[in-house]
Amino acid sequence: MKAQFITLDGIDGAGKSTNLAVIRNWFEERKLPVLFTREPGGTPIGEALRALLLNPATKVSLHTETLLMFAARRQHLEEVILPALEQGVHVVSDRFTDATFAYQGGGRGLDFKQIEILENWVQQDFRPDLTLLMDVPLEVSMARISQTREKDRFEQEQADFFTRVRAAYLHRAAAAPERYAVVDGNRDLAAVRADVEAVLCRHFQACAY
Amino acid sequence: MKAQFITLDGIDGAGKSTNLAVIRNWFEERKLPVLFTREPGGTPIGEALRALLLNPATKVSLHTETLLMFAARRQHLEEVILPALEQGVHVVSDRFTDATFAYQGGGRGLDFKQIEILENWVQQDFRPDLTLLMDVPLEVSMARISQTREKDRFEQEQADFFTRVRAAYLHRAAAAPERYAVVDGNRDLAAVRADVEAVLCRHFQACAY
Repeated sequence: MKAQFITLDGIDGAGKSTNLAVIRNWFEERKLPVLFTREPGGTPIGEALRALLLNPATKVSLHTETLLMFAARRQHLEEVILPALEQGVHVVSDRFTDATFAYQGGGRGLDFKQIEILENWVQQDFRPDLTLLMDVPLEVSMARISQTREKDRFEQEQADFFTRVRAAYLHRAAAAPERYAVVDGNRDLAAVRADVEAVLCRHFQACAY
Repeated sequence: MKAQFITLDGIDGAGKSTNLAVIRNWFEERKLPVLFTREPGGTPIGEALRALLLNPATKVSLHTETLLMFAARRQHLEEVILPALEQGVHVVSDRFTDATFAYQGGGRGLDFKQIEILENWVQQDFRPDLTLLMDVPLEVSMARISQTREKDRFEQEQADFFTRVRAAYLHRAAAAPERYAVVDGNRDLAAVRADVEAVLCRHFQACAY
């Protein structure tokens, strides 16, 4: 099996961080070579762009924001993701292009067709092999975000924004069920963990159920 | 006459800075409302990106660099250029999209068609009304650059790079002579100045020759 590119995505507060740890543990237990990275970021220039993009003081238009996300993504692909995969190392990215469709598309209203133009420009036909979409109801997301000490530029958005973000994620997952695994994050940790592990096992056909 | 968008472009060392002063003076003498700006830059986020892009320590791929140039450009258009033009103020930009075709296209080898995709994404059908292309032979450019104390990431390139950049500029000018005025910058200042002023007068039909 060639090295896999796996992405973890979902609205803020859906439990990505917790489940990144679950995924890390899953790979470690099997001694599978894996690299964890994140978007926006993952490279020096990507992290500089992340700081700009998440800073609530940054004044940036929707189109500019989208171009910056894809600029960071292109560097991430060339410098980190593709070289790792070529060396047989699996890559797990905390967010990827689905987040652009969800946040800049669903959340802020940029036409999906416009995003697809940049997706193709930046990635050609490269897409994740598997996307774990962490999903929770809006109230759960909002309650979890409210516990964050300082909200970034995206977390400062209102409930209707996240409603649209979530809908865009679910829409994309429904349109390509062979690539997406939607995980209900609104349950106790053990149940969520079991689901995430089952998704990985099924994808890698590495263990039986 | 609607407010005009004028760009000044050309290889490093072609005399852009000197002739920006000539242009500024031309507008001031006629008391025409005008805004001077530059690329990459022109906005807070654009200037932050400029600092990243010109810094010789920045590690950035050709495709990422091109996306960042267009990200800065989009913000520049929305925040500075279009609002000024809408208020009847002429805008003069030190570099614009021609520079992307010349540097990332001609200089670094990115397919012009790939650049056109981003140009259309970012600008739709918005293009300069007039582009003054300052042109000098390569030796003159290199001699002038060598006097710069610290070279930026682009100025550190070698002669064959600038040969390709210059050729790309001239190719674009030849393909759309109604928009471009090529000014031979390899003459004494008074002669160059007279040419620049003549180009502006012809464009604005503001004075006779």
